[in-house]
Amino acid sequence: MPSVSPNLAAAMSDSAKAVADALERLLPKSDFPERKLFDAMRYGALNGGKRLRPFLVMSAAKIFGVADECALRAAAAVECIHCYSLIHDDLPAMDNADLRRGVPTTHKQYDEATAILAGDALLTLAFEILADPRTHEDPQVRCRLVTALAKASGVHGMVGGQMLDLIAETTQLDIGAITRLQRLKTGELIAFSTEAGAILGKASLQHSNALRAYAHDLGLAFQIIDDLLDAEGTEEETGKSVGRDAQAGKATFVTILGADRARQQAKLLSEQAIQHLSVFEGRAQHLEDVARFVVDRKK
Amino acid sequence: MPSVSPNLAAAMSDSAKAVADALERLLPKSDFPERKLFDAMRYGALNGGKRLRPFLVMSAAKIFGVADECALRAAAAVECIHCYSLIHDDLPAMDNADLRRGVPTTHKQYDEATAILAGDALLTLAFEILADPRTHEDPQVRCRLVTALAKASGVHGMVGGQMLDLIAETTQLDIGAITRLQRLKTGELIAFSTEAGAILGKASLQHSNALRAYAHDLGLAFQIIDDLLDAEGTEEETGKSVGRDAQAGKATFVTILGADRARQQAKLLSEQAIQHLSVFEGRAQHLEDVARFVVDRKK
Repeated sequence: MPSVSPNLAAAMSDSAKAVADALERLLPKSDFPERKLFDAMRYGALNGGKRLRPFLVMSAAKIFGVADECALRAAAAVECIHCYSLIHDDLPAMDNADLRRGVPTTHKQYDEATAILAGDALLTLAFEILADPRTHEDPQVRCRLVTALAKASGVHGMVGGQMLDLIAETTQLDIGAITRLQRLKTGELIAFSTEAGAILGKASLQHSNALRAYAHDLGLAFQIIDDLLDAEGTEEETGKSVGRDAQAGKATFVTILGADRARQQAKLLSEQAIQHLSVFEGRAQHLEDVARFVVDRKK
Repeated sequence: MPSVSPNLAAAMSDSAKAVADALERLLPKSDFPERKLFDAMRYGALNGGKRLRPFLVMSAAKIFGVADECALRAAAAVECIHCYSLIHDDLPAMDNADLRRGVPTTHKQYDEATAILAGDALLTLAFEILADPRTHEDPQVRCRLVTALAKASGVHGMVGGQMLDLIAETTQLDIGAITRLQRLKTGELIAFSTEAGAILGKASLQHSNALRAYAHDLGLAFQIIDDLLDAEGTEEETGKSVGRDAQAGKATFVTILGADRARQQAKLLSEQAIQHLSVFEGRAQHLEDVARFVVDRKK
């Protein structure tokens, strides 16, 4: 059995292309003198990537019959947030990374000031996209999206997690603290991605909760595999700098659990994630496939 | 005649205190390990300042009878954006400033990584505050606030203006380009501040347009005086580094027009701003006073 079902591979590829097209339309473009900023935003947001979060938005939205155009806008917004966070995290004052997705990081390609501003602009654009009537006709739905994305990406979400990650470089964390760090740093935005589908589709509380539980397990599984790839992968395979956690002497799931138990734990979380989808009675096939994919991926 | 009417001074002081209280409630606080991030956000947002933008929100909202609690939340949101922009603009890769409002800048007090994240978090928090039902019961109003703030602070507003400002360090700009730069960098957020009052109060198009025209002139006048203070003020008077434009060889309103004509131009803009308020038939006294204040201020 192949590790990624051909259906999933095709669906992810289609979705990634549609999201890239949506971003292409939504990102600013002009010959204004500040064009360098627009170019840096495009550079940071359009240079490939798995587009996992947008795919989760699209797949969750599909369960509830949300129109593609609405789901695509929410998917583009979450990708703006993800890409801004990568641009800022790569900065010299943070992870000081030179390579991302196989090409120079944004501050290497442009300069630090432009990279900081491009990140700020992508972050701001995400909320502009969500609040636009084209994302959903009901302003209540749009406000819920804005609120949920702000919470997932703010101090009690992604930014708080990144702060913890910086603290982890000088403080030895235990498994509980690492789990919390990762839930904030990557888990909350992954959870928002499925939640966005539920909000757009005005899903029941039962369905929303099922998606949240799924995303929670998926996010952790995803992160454990990320740690494994950092510990065991090569720059050629992953397209990004590897071995950074070990260099920084940072505690991760892998350093604490060991590679074998970490991999087992990721598989367990993946299976558990799939079980949460049983309420959808087969209508969440892509989400099931994604849960298998994240633990089998090689980059 | 005193340069600032006693009424205005008292009103601005009351408003600044109310906004500081609102920010105090809205900013995160806890003993989580990532507390340093919360502290840095508070440091960047609560260390005084004129609170001009919040005062504009409050004053414009008062014209339309908006409840104080709603106006205060919008005022706090715009101040979060203003303060995030100061934190990021002060970074070594940008203006590399050591002093702000008489105390060390956020990256000097903490470190660069924490300052970048504190800025990101304040930016995100602004949208969370606006989308919350406590800001206005009508979700349509909240969405309009989110949209307007995102536009004012994004690539076609403040962030675009900051990019132009960086470009201005190496490119000689003419008066038209500088006017556009300043409209983006400071004008749009000042315009949002009065617009927020109009949105919250569901103002007529005529009233909204009058406020926009007022804010446009006010913003330019404000910036010209900022340039004058940078050229002629002292660090003791202004509480921030001065002479930076001249050091950087940057074209400003003052270098192009000369100090006298720049001051004349600011006064003219201030008078023009006040004329736009005639539609309010005396109900915009604070806004009139502010237009006089910004050209007479010493810091």
